[in-house]
Amino acid sequence: MKLLKEKVMNEGIVLGEQVLKVDSFLNHQMDPMLMSEIGSEFVRRFAGEEITKILTIESSGIAPAIMTALELRVPMIFARKNKSLTLREDIFVEKVYSFTKRETNEITVSKKFLGANDRVLIIDDFLANGEAAFGLARIAEQAGASVVGIGIVIEKSFQPGAKLLQEAGYRVDSLVRIASLDNGTVTFVE
Amino acid sequence: MKLLKEKVMNEGIVLGEQVLKVDSFLNHQMDPMLMSEIGSEFVRRFAGEEITKILTIESSGIAPAIMTALELRVPMIFARKNKSLTLREDIFVEKVYSFTKRETNEITVSKKFLGANDRVLIIDDFLANGEAAFGLARIAEQAGASVVGIGIVIEKSFQPGAKLLQEAGYRVDSLVRIASLDNGTVTFVE
Repeated sequence: MKLLKEKVMNEGIVLGEQVLKVDSFLNHQMDPMLMSEIGSEFVRRFAGEEITKILTIESSGIAPAIMTALELRVPMIFARKNKSLTLREDIFVEKVYSFTKRETNEITVSKKFLGANDRVLIIDDFLANGEAAFGLARIAEQAGASVVGIGIVIEKSFQPGAKLLQEAGYRVDSLVRIASLDNGTVTFVE
Repeated sequence: MKLLKEKVMNEGIVLGEQVLKVDSFLNHQMDPMLMSEIGSEFVRRFAGEEITKILTIESSGIAPAIMTALELRVPMIFARKNKSLTLREDIFVEKVYSFTKRETNEITVSKKFLGANDRVLIIDDFLANGEAAFGLARIAEQAGASVVGIGIVIEKSFQPGAKLLQEAGYRVDSLVRIASLDNGTVTFVE
């Protein structure tokens, strides 16, 4: 996706060999026109999959996920990272470890909103070790739903997430794939 | 806003006299078509204000805010509730007390994304005591920006937030205003 690649090149800030900061258009400030194009691109890539629900996780997944859901005219669900006071019961729970924050969160989805007839597209902003995507997939599977695929805005292909998800049988489709952040430079997968 | 009122009537769950749960279309599962209409309605209500930035707070504010930003073709910024590892410096910080969660969070916005020339529309999903909206407004003002108004999806008018914000000089425009949740029933402000 050319526009996204340009944004990463022009505005991404490399912080060491593992971390790419894209808080001018994706993780803090958001570019709504780009989010809309990202939604259209996911719809194009997963065409014919008869998706019934978009599933993401708060917070940076919400904007690309709602744009995808809008174009498909299906509901979007965002998993919460902690149990909130008003979501006490009837929830699916999975543990997700965050390497960035060095902590384990419980992610939760209400059982009301996912069922055995659902065909779920998982959307997230970044894919690194795959922890969040695996957690979301396990939640969909707890519900008996089918995971049609995992759509990622930026994949750090030098980390194991994409490979592990594919080995587990999931279709992973990433809009931008980064081969390396070495020497302060973004190198894309050809 | 008729469609939103109907959603609140048909899908809102009253939990006591203070809490309205709308997690089927706003706070957990989200209805993207409704979010898009909410964005259009905010644009209509704040027409002519020459808005340059939409400011909200994670997580439930993000979807209505990105839809508003998309129609205005301006950036959206979501304040984070905790300092993240990749947002260490050059940030505006305000303390915000959550009555629902009974805890004080620091909300943060990077100084890169708000400046003295900005005309900021604050968007949030709920208005109760006004803590989050005041925190966002103070952040915009720390940046020297103008707050053109505060757009709220659901105002609980029996709680003091709207009145306090208006007394402080802010324009508050809420799409749905709830007079009471007594007796398990949603009563709207006429």
